[in-house]
Formats: sequence, C-alpha cells, structure tokens
Amino acid sequence: MFKKRENVLEIEEGNLLSPKFDNDGLIPVITMCAKTKEILMHGYMNVEALKKTIETKEAHYFSRSRNALWHKGKTSGFTQKVTEIRIDDDQDSIWLTVDIGEGSSCHVGYRSCFYRSTEKEKKFDPEKVYKGQPNPTKI
Amino acid sequence: MFKKRENVLEIEEGNLLSPKFDNDGLIPVITMCAKTKEILMHGYMNVEALKKTIETKEAHYFSRSRNALWHKGKTSGFTQKVTEIRIDDDQDSIWLTVDIGEGSSCHVGYRSCFYRSTEKEKKFDPEKVYKGQPNPTKI
Repeated sequence: MFKKRENVLEIEEGNLLSPKFDNDGLIPVITMCAKTKEILMHGYMNVEALKKTIETKEAHYFSRSRNALWHKGKTSGFTQKVTEIRIDDDQDSIWLTVDIGEGSSCHVGYRSCFYRSTEKEKKFDPEKVYKGQPNPTKI
Repeated sequence: MFKKRENVLEIEEGNLLSPKFDNDGLIPVITMCAKTKEILMHGYMNVEALKKTIETKEAHYFSRSRNALWHKGKTSGFTQKVTEIRIDDDQDSIWLTVDIGEGSSCHVGYRSCFYRSTEKEKKFDPEKVYKGQPNPTKI
C-alpha cells in the first residue's frame, strides 16, 4: 500500500503515499473534528493502524500506553469516521479529519483532549464508560 | 515556568502547565492557522522552544534535522504570531494557533505543509528564499 521512500522530490511533490515511520515504527497524527474544526486529539499510528484506517475509514491508532493497535471508540462507542486523510510535505505526519457525531474523543470525558479554557462540562462519565480499565495518562 | 508532574488528577484537570517531554526532550506541536483553521504544520518543541514561544509570542520549535532551536520564519521572514496555546489532557502535545498574515509555513513553498489535494500554486520560490541551505526533508 505504501511507496518506498526513494527521492526527496517524489516525496515532497509526488502523489504517492510514502509515510515515514520513526524509530519506534510510529507516525504522529493530528485529528480534527470535521464539524467544528477543533483539534480533538494528537495520536500515533504504526503501519497496521494506518492501513486499517484507510481500509475501514474508521480511525485506528497505536496506543503507546497499552503497546497495542487501538480501534478508537471500541470501548466507549465513540468511533471516528474518517472524512479526509492528509500527509505533510516530507510525509512524516498525518492530518486526519473525522466525524464523531455527538460523541466525544477524550478519555477524561470531554469532547476534545484540548479541553482546558473552553469545555466546562464533561460529555460522559469516564468512571462508568471505562470501568476497570487503567488510565492512559502516566506521570 | 513549568510545574513538576506529580499526580494524574492535577495533570488532567488542573490549570498548571506540566508538559511531558519525551526521551529526546521533545513535545509534538500542532500548528493551526488562526484565519483559515487549516493545519499549517506538525513540529516539535524542547523546553527552550516552548519557553521562548511563551515569552516572545512567536513560534519557536526544535529542528530535528538541524538539531537546533528554530525561530520559525527567521530565514524566510514568515514568522508565526501566536494567538493561542493549548495543551491536551495528559499534557504531552501542544496545539498552537498562529497568525501568519499573508505568509507561508512550508519549506516547499506552499502556505501549509499539508498542501496535497488543495494548493496548486506555490506562495514563494524556496530556491530563492532558502538559497544555499540544506533541504530538511530526509529520505
């Protein structure tokens, strides 16, 4: 599915997908809400997550805290329907636009992970939705 | 300037800035255009770059290709005036909103680094603006 990275001009100005995964096999992903244009989250994909995202049109990430493929919304029901995937100049980061309907994106209970200064009320109660699961936030 | 990371509740729900820098001392940054809401670029900051950005209200990054502090726009003149800085739930990524006026953000010559499928015409000629400087895109 991905073209091997061979020359800079092709990577920058070509139309072939040649993503660059870092030493951990990951590429960073910016996820934007299609409706509000707010940033919902910043995550990572490995090769498998990017392929699954393209194939299923639902966002898949690689969870660094769980060290596993992560089908976003599988636990909470808040899946992300992909409306657009873009990649940057040197193809080492991805901009995903998604439709989350009336759902949420953040494990703390807010719509966006960038909730400080804007969101006052949680959209769901994470203690109920994620009952018994470890908190991904690490000190 | 930054609060030490001590407990998860404080990190997630508090109002103190406790950014998490990775093993390379970096935190990823999403940069959005204040006017158009498009994503201009995805970059990284180290402690110094984040401090400089807060102090000067102009975006500073850490260039991984040059391994140095990077005052965005210093060469091209296309500086980024910061209008908002946000941080996510576990404080390991930053969302920066910037005003670039009529300027550009991408070293290839386009306004946004995510130019594929939208921008047909370059905003500037990188061979003139960056004359003699190495291309940051690596294979």
